[in-house]
Amino acid sequence: MKIMVMGIDGYLGWTLSMHLSARGHDVCGVDNYTRRKIVKEVGSWSATPIKTMGDRIIAYRKATGKTLRFYEGDITHFDFIEHVIAKEIPDTIVHFGEIPSAPYSMIDVDHANYTQVNNIVGNNNILFAMKKHAQNCHLLKLGTMGEYGTPNVDIPEGFFELEYRGRKDRLPFPRQPGSWYHLSKVHDTHNIAFACRIWGLCSTDIMQGVVHGIVTDDMINDDLLTRFDFDEAFGTAINRFCAQAVIGHELTPYGKGGQTRGYIALRDSMQCLTLATENPPVMGEYRVFNQFDKTYSANELAEHVVKVAGEFGIDAKIWNIENPRVESEDHYYNPDHAKLAALGFKHKNDLDDELRLTLPELLKHKERINAKKDVIDPKIRWRN
Amino acid sequence: MKIMVMGIDGYLGWTLSMHLSARGHDVCGVDNYTRRKIVKEVGSWSATPIKTMGDRIIAYRKATGKTLRFYEGDITHFDFIEHVIAKEIPDTIVHFGEIPSAPYSMIDVDHANYTQVNNIVGNNNILFAMKKHAQNCHLLKLGTMGEYGTPNVDIPEGFFELEYRGRKDRLPFPRQPGSWYHLSKVHDTHNIAFACRIWGLCSTDIMQGVVHGIVTDDMINDDLLTRFDFDEAFGTAINRFCAQAVIGHELTPYGKGGQTRGYIALRDSMQCLTLATENPPVMGEYRVFNQFDKTYSANELAEHVVKVAGEFGIDAKIWNIENPRVESEDHYYNPDHAKLAALGFKHKNDLDDELRLTLPELLKHKERINAKKDVIDPKIRWRN
Repeated sequence: MKIMVMGIDGYLGWTLSMHLSARGHDVCGVDNYTRRKIVKEVGSWSATPIKTMGDRIIAYRKATGKTLRFYEGDITHFDFIEHVIAKEIPDTIVHFGEIPSAPYSMIDVDHANYTQVNNIVGNNNILFAMKKHAQNCHLLKLGTMGEYGTPNVDIPEGFFELEYRGRKDRLPFPRQPGSWYHLSKVHDTHNIAFACRIWGLCSTDIMQGVVHGIVTDDMINDDLLTRFDFDEAFGTAINRFCAQAVIGHELTPYGKGGQTRGYIALRDSMQCLTLATENPPVMGEYRVFNQFDKTYSANELAEHVVKVAGEFGIDAKIWNIENPRVESEDHYYNPDHAKLAALGFKHKNDLDDELRLTLPELLKHKERINAKKDVIDPKIRWRN
Repeated sequence: MKIMVMGIDGYLGWTLSMHLSARGHDVCGVDNYTRRKIVKEVGSWSATPIKTMGDRIIAYRKATGKTLRFYEGDITHFDFIEHVIAKEIPDTIVHFGEIPSAPYSMIDVDHANYTQVNNIVGNNNILFAMKKHAQNCHLLKLGTMGEYGTPNVDIPEGFFELEYRGRKDRLPFPRQPGSWYHLSKVHDTHNIAFACRIWGLCSTDIMQGVVHGIVTDDMINDDLLTRFDFDEAFGTAINRFCAQAVIGHELTPYGKGGQTRGYIALRDSMQCLTLATENPPVMGEYRVFNQFDKTYSANELAEHVVKVAGEFGIDAKIWNIENPRVESEDHYYNPDHAKLAALGFKHKNDLDDELRLTLPELLKHKERINAKKDVIDPKIRWRN
């Protein structure tokens, strides 16, 4: 298959591009380095010392003999992305090219609007360019489990059968996102479903849980490492806990720590995304996959990190701190995740296994974390 | 009450501002004339010869002795709208300041993105400015019944009690909008609900049906008329039918004409918006009103226009044409609308009554419609 990865320079983009290329697919990618710029803006960097895109491509070719074609540009410029899609006419577009941070979007009105406009316009441009030049292309779009929020009922995969006052329909499941960023993903979801409905495009909208881990089999040498963020804006809770363990800081779940989310190991995420790519929907179909492996509360995550850190001689402590967010800290959470299993997904990497790969990798880069340790503690608040 | 009307120069904005002022409220307004510009862009103008904003304010003062304060500017510029809100600190912000056309948003990618970005950013800016300078202000926001689409079940007012797999929750009712414009309103809805939840702002989100009519009691003379659009982009079906009747053109429902929507007379819309303004929600409350009077299919509307046109000696004919939109032409439609009734809304003006005021007013401006009659037939298509 010919596959185009939007956001090829990012955490998942770079990892998946190598993974799909290694499986024999013809992979190209697009990026404008927004992720590197905004992580720098919040005063941080990747714990792993990642190479420039140019060096990555050279290193990948040296290591594997395979080529990744790269287009530098901004998908919010329609002329640019239309040109690239018309030139390549991919079978699949994997769309990771969005600003991915809830706290970043909560900094102020400028960051809220920037996140929403960047994500919505980029996504709309891809839809319009597909309609014009690649009607048969499958859009594999990265959404987030956070679109659903934490309702007091089970969460189906995108749609549910509603019986209401004696009549029935199959409807999109209600979304209750918790940040301007999460809202941008909900907006995308509605926009994509509409484009599929009126134009007959097809898409898989991935409601992904939190991905953890750094290492995959495709990272043959250190020049091929993907990024690992640990700052308050771009580092997930589990990334921050790992970074804190490595530098001897207490692990700091927010609030009571009962916030429960779905998680998946990086290598399992690659497996899922590959399954979705290689098993596209039919034309006109808009389908939603809930992509995670298991659910954990923030406290449980911290306890797993403490346990595995202990195996590496680190005596980590947990210190719950005031929650900067507005969210339930104790709630029901039971999302479905059967569709990827039906396509053949088999859980291979559990949380502890993945932590046993992540922590030693981070220990190698301890000084890089220490140099930016002030950006781990939360300063961005949902209120105020 | 001190009331600020965003989009004071528009169809509803101008009409409501006079109405609220006449009731003794202190009314100011904001506009940047986007509506006039984009109606001109599609080659049309208002059938009623409306005055400039400056002349409107002078005419209103002459006729009533009352003053409407006006701020010219673009609400998508945060510095501008923050300044205005901080200066006025209104009790209520009525937000009509959005691009209101489904077909306009369907022209191409630029118009789709322009509509979504303009509407989302303007709305977000108001939320952030309220949070900073007017925490106790009530945001009365204009949404649309079109946010819901046409599900095969009853449509509640914003939220519904869901029982799902043995558990219960009160959730936002799913939205299935039918254009990039309608999507922008759904995006606003999610953004506003979030701001109310995390910041304790309060808002009434009005899911309004199609408003019809030109004349209200506040239009004491012709200098105070509001606009009436009849082109394919900004004219609603009923406006187009009225304009077609006046110039002797067939009335042209799209497709089979079974598309059913909620409608409300302009004077009844004023009554509803006044009730919502004068009965604000409690702080932190996000409430949704379905604001319409009765539902009609497109064919039924056309038949009402034919009947009332006959009373004015016009022999109008109906000619269903190919539907440029992608929508159900024969569907279930049963939305709730009890909340405004509970606040005291009483239907005063039925469709025929309103048509008996609208058609003679339009007959006065027949030459203005004839001059732009080519913009009535649909050229913007949902597919293609």
